[in-house]
Amino acid sequence: MARSMLVISAHAADFVWRASGAVAMHTGAGGSATVVSLSYGERGESGALWSRPGQTLEAVRRIRREEAVAAASILDADFVALDLGDYPLVIDEQATQRLVDLFIETVPDVVLIHAPNDPFNPDHPVASQASQRVRLLAMGAGGVPAAFPTIPPPAMYAFEPHQPDLCDFKPDTFVDITPVWPVKAKALEAMGAQTYLRDHYTERARQRAFQARYIGAGPEVEYVEAFQRLTPEMRGAL
Amino acid sequence: MARSMLVISAHAADFVWRASGAVAMHTGAGGSATVVSLSYGERGESGALWSRPGQTLEAVRRIRREEAVAAASILDADFVALDLGDYPLVIDEQATQRLVDLFIETVPDVVLIHAPNDPFNPDHPVASQASQRVRLLAMGAGGVPAAFPTIPPPAMYAFEPHQPDLCDFKPDTFVDITPVWPVKAKALEAMGAQTYLRDHYTERARQRAFQARYIGAGPEVEYVEAFQRLTPEMRGAL
Amino acid sequence: MARSMLVISAHAADFVWRASGAVAMHTGAGGSATVVSLSYGERGESGALWSRPGQTLEAVRRIRREEAVAAASILDADFVALDLGDYPLVIDEQATQRLVDLFIETVPDVVLIHAPNDPFNPDHPVASQASQRVRLLAMGAGGVPAAFPTIPPPAMYAFEPHQPDLCDFKPDTFVDITPVWPVKAKALEAMGAQTYLRDHYTERARQRAFQARYIGAGPEVEYVEAFQRLTPEMRGAL
Amino acid sequence: MARSMLVISAHAADFVWRASGAVAMHTGAGGSATVVSLSYGERGESGALWSRPGQTLEAVRRIRREEAVAAASILDADFVALDLGDYPLVIDEQATQRLVDLFIETVPDVVLIHAPNDPFNPDHPVASQASQRVRLLAMGAGGVPAAFPTIPPPAMYAFEPHQPDLCDFKPDTFVDITPVWPVKAKALEAMGAQTYLRDHYTERARQRAFQARYIGAGPEVEYVEAFQRLTPEMRGAL
Amino acid sequence: MARSMLVISAHAADFVWRASGAVAMHTGAGGSATVVSLSYGERGESGALWSRPGQTLEAVRRIRREEAVAAASILDADFVALDLGDYPLVIDEQATQRLVDLFIETVPDVVLIHAPNDPFNPDHPVASQASQRVRLLAMGAGGVPAAFPTIPPPAMYAFEPHQPDLCDFKPDTFVDITPVWPVKAKALEAMGAQTYLRDHYTERARQRAFQARYIGAGPEVEYVEAFQRLTPEMRGAL
Amino acid sequence: MARSMLVISAHAADFVWRASGAVAMHTGAGGSATVVSLSYGERGESGALWSRPGQTLEAVRRIRREEAVAAASILDADFVALDLGDYPLVIDEQATQRLVDLFIETVPDVVLIHAPNDPFNPDHPVASQASQRVRLLAMGAGGVPAAFPTIPPPAMYAFEPHQPDLCDFKPDTFVDITPVWPVKAKALEAMGAQTYLRDHYTERARQRAFQARYIGAGPEVEYVEAFQRLTPEMRGAL
Repeated sequence: MARSMLVISAHAADFVWRASGAVAMHTGAGGSATVVSLSYGERGESGALWSRPGQTLEAVRRIRREEAVAAASILDADFVALDLGDYPLVIDEQATQRLVDLFIETVPDVVLIHAPNDPFNPDHPVASQASQRVRLLAMGAGGVPAAFPTIPPPAMYAFEPHQPDLCDFKPDTFVDITPVWPVKAKALEAMGAQTYLRDHYTERARQRAFQARYIGAGPEVEYVEAFQRLTPEMRGAL
Repeated sequence: MARSMLVISAHAADFVWRASGAVAMHTGAGGSATVVSLSYGERGESGALWSRPGQTLEAVRRIRREEAVAAASILDADFVALDLGDYPLVIDEQATQRLVDLFIETVPDVVLIHAPNDPFNPDHPVASQASQRVRLLAMGAGGVPAAFPTIPPPAMYAFEPHQPDLCDFKPDTFVDITPVWPVKAKALEAMGAQTYLRDHYTERARQRAFQARYIGAGPEVEYVEAFQRLTPEMRGAL
Repeated sequence: MARSMLVISAHAADFVWRASGAVAMHTGAGGSATVVSLSYGERGESGALWSRPGQTLEAVRRIRREEAVAAASILDADFVALDLGDYPLVIDEQATQRLVDLFIETVPDVVLIHAPNDPFNPDHPVASQASQRVRLLAMGAGGVPAAFPTIPPPAMYAFEPHQPDLCDFKPDTFVDITPVWPVKAKALEAMGAQTYLRDHYTERARQRAFQARYIGAGPEVEYVEAFQRLTPEMRGAL
Repeated sequence: MARSMLVISAHAADFVWRASGAVAMHTGAGGSATVVSLSYGERGESGALWSRPGQTLEAVRRIRREEAVAAASILDADFVALDLGDYPLVIDEQATQRLVDLFIETVPDVVLIHAPNDPFNPDHPVASQASQRVRLLAMGAGGVPAAFPTIPPPAMYAFEPHQPDLCDFKPDTFVDITPVWPVKAKALEAMGAQTYLRDHYTERARQRAFQARYIGAGPEVEYVEAFQRLTPEMRGAL
Repeated sequence: MARSMLVISAHAADFVWRASGAVAMHTGAGGSATVVSLSYGERGESGALWSRPGQTLEAVRRIRREEAVAAASILDADFVALDLGDYPLVIDEQATQRLVDLFIETVPDVVLIHAPNDPFNPDHPVASQASQRVRLLAMGAGGVPAAFPTIPPPAMYAFEPHQPDLCDFKPDTFVDITPVWPVKAKALEAMGAQTYLRDHYTERARQRAFQARYIGAGPEVEYVEAFQRLTPEMRGAL
Repeated sequence: MARSMLVISAHAADFVWRASGAVAMHTGAGGSATVVSLSYGERGESGALWSRPGQTLEAVRRIRREEAVAAASILDADFVALDLGDYPLVIDEQATQRLVDLFIETVPDVVLIHAPNDPFNPDHPVASQASQRVRLLAMGAGGVPAAFPTIPPPAMYAFEPHQPDLCDFKPDTFVDITPVWPVKAKALEAMGAQTYLRDHYTERARQRAFQARYIGAGPEVEYVEAFQRLTPEMRGAL
């Protein structure tokens, strides 16, 4: 059966910069993926658009949605927008329940979320904490029956924040995305409102590949995305 | 090619209580394993033997060696004793070089060592720090040529200390050892000098299995060993 | 004057598994104890009950209440249920005030609460944080008069979480509960909806006793509960 | 252009004990300063006033306001009270927006806030977290245009909590306030409702001066306030 | 039987400033105490003496020894000097064995040592780590027989470093030393070579007393020493 | 008077990749700088050279020395080699004393050292710990006279490790090195034995500049080096 992946992104573009390579590896291997965007990043993270005179919130929201839908489509992932607003992103009990429902619907094997801490962004930690809580609410306790439908415990990873060392981010899982780099490059291109981040994350992927040589990657590994595993893992062997 | 495992144990018995299930899973799957025992635990960790009147250091050393050799043999692992003494264990530059040589000879894919901290044991942290340092000395820097022979970077895990929560031990990798439990049980039995630890670690493996239900283990998982990964990992997918 | 103890439990059963021995030692020594259960654990932590066809929330709530009342009674403790619901447990300002009132009414010398972190449970950290905040609201600042009634600062301990090492739990206080083990065993028995946890926590108490030998416990200590002190302590001597 | 400082105080008096020396140094050098008091500390931190029979909340609020206005005036700082109430202090989205507006109005170069953790006070961490979040909401993301007015990223420091070592406070920035000590002494005097803290913080400033000798302060440094920088800093040289 | 206390001080004066109140409480209650001074602090911590022209190492060593002997005598404690030298203090295997012997001879119930970290002092962390290691070597493993004589596990506390918040010191145990303050004051007076520290530590004890009001100390508590417990504790009740 | 800077590098090239921009800014502003290289990195960090057949240790040592001397000269810094050997680097008491002497001779205002932790390098943490210890030995205690010559406490920073987030590196000080980028580029070029690191650290400097926009850097800031301050700082104002 196809493995299922769920990605929870605070703003429409976050998943593209930091996790789209892993998504493409996953769907390329036959897995299904759903990206949930809690907001469009329309107010705080749509830089170029707000430098145009006469810009409106509605227009920005529409453009960013189109970009994110296009990027998700390039990655062969479904895209769901909760449109909760940004700067600040607030996730109330109703939105929480919608997220729980998405876990129940997609029964993810693996969940990608924001890193728990980010002293440079008001919304990322909110998204991370809500994602962790929702996963627990959808799992119930240790596999016992509950008053509500539950799913088996999915693995959970944090994708890389913009300033990893200042966010207490400790990458322990490096994914070689070289095989799908052209796909990620295309997805990066779809995010027209933040073109200045394309080069940054292209180079980031190269730097991670270089660091990966210290854990055995050869020169054929050119692009890497870094993740931090947030849940323990069962293994048959070490 | 067979995967190679190296286990570094401060005292002769440490690897049996805390890692022998993972060793048996490894050798059972066709891998090769070498256990390096830095001391026999002859002075500080051979309880029952020292309650016999007229006991001598030589006799204890011999008995503990025989036990450890027997346990390693049950696990289908090679056994190497450095006989550095215990309470205190001191690892000088010469012993360090012998350990480096063992890395070069065995070219391990995975190394199992003591956890970095243990406020209840004077020798375990010494063994852990030396093991980490030796791995780096045997690897060289990021895969570039060096003045000495080097190996590719092996994965490294800490096995469980006696008091995990008081040793800052955060298990992130649970190995289902149910299939080899009879083998581990036999290895535990070989350690005659510390029979009081057998029941403790049998029950520990059951408690870990119970905890593993929260990460998806079903009731068929009856015995688990817990490890903490100390090195990042390359993966093709999450 | 009798010492007063307050125990704050997220779900009806939490206090039984992890703290009932300490409660029984306390009441056995003539102290008074009040258990506050924030919810009945009716939705997420009543496993066996939800495997019965046609089960209703009302029935589960009633059964779990009866079990908890019975267990508290065995421990000679008062039982107060706030019935705030579980999975998720939400503690609003009104519930906070009810908890403050309970502190004022019971004037506890010692408070037992959930550990601050628990990545495996959505409700335990919520209960822990609320308990800590409520204690401060009931104390006022450093013993000075306030606009509201205050109590002297009670000692506060976290009881053991289900996965202590993965919850950053550092036990620093071990309570020998051997003398009251029959009482705790009877209280464990009262929790019919989660029978699978009885053996687990019986064995946990034995493992803690074994670990306690490293801080001086002799073989007469057979059952121990572990706690982490959350508040500094005044002593007349070390 | 004059440098602008913003100080965010949970209760009316907090900024006086812990940061008024740095404020006086700042205004004395020609800078402008605004103190925002989230509450008057009227319920929980107005000790002496509540020991008077027949005291009313209204009277306490008025007195504490007068004291704080006087202290701010002595420091040549503006004073803004949000009057959100204390014990507990709750900062809702509307209050958050008022704080954002204050950042936009004052365009601070430097912001002084409570330390993130304080296990002895229910309101200080609430104030700290809100202050950090508000700073991010007022900055937007990395200097790019947004849907709302933004300010350049101000430096942010935590001032010293009452029990620094128990609040994880790591002072990395010591300000020599000897030149303005008479000003701070006068401001301390203005806080009539908590006279018992005057001597404590006078002596604290002397102890910090003594510790500062280990980072090069000479005997001419008699009074020091300690801060922890919460944001990275650009420098032209080390 | 009288309780036994062992205090391990890097330099001759350290124990006086930071722990002599607790020593006096202990001996005043009938306990025995031994102070081990690893060095005299003759090179790096004998300030005033080295400002005298023509000063010699021998003279400083003698004077500091006399001071320390006098202080210990005032506290009714034995004084043992290992004379290992300071700045740097180096503790080799032979000195380690002498310390182990001292544990075996004094069979301490409680051990007072330096805090593990101190970024302002080259010798204090060395003393702390050696003390922790020696305690483990003298205890053996969990109460089982060993090749060498062992003692029951003593409690161990760190006394307060000079800059507690910058040394990661988290005091969790406050000792009311008001009853023996005149004794401590006299011991402080004996340390003639560092008179500038007398006032500092007198005031420190008053500040700790003030902080202790937040854990219930009344106004009768005037002087307090702060400690951090480094070993778990068995208790009969909470 | 010219400010003095001391840089302590484990291997001959470390200071070039990670700190040469800050050195050039310092000397460019009229300061003096001394680079101390503990080893030449001749065994473990001279990649390209060891791929040449017939290579000898002597030749590598000479080449690496020439490169480092050239790089230091480009930065207008003095170069001192202690030639202690690498993989492993061992710093004994005699080498420690030579380092102390260098502090006394150069009386540094600021010291740049390796970060305290590096799980990917056996020598960097050794260099870092020795550097910290030596600074304390050269300072004495808090400015009081000692048996040996002392210097005023210099500021101390860690320069960036190769894998910052995996080394617990928290950069808090960003130095804009744009004005001296051509100088650093020339110094990078001098390190012929590790050309593969040139591009990596050029791009790293650009990534740091990009991150610096979140603390106020404008587009004119193109190259940045990141440091972590290890010592508190006195300031006249915030």
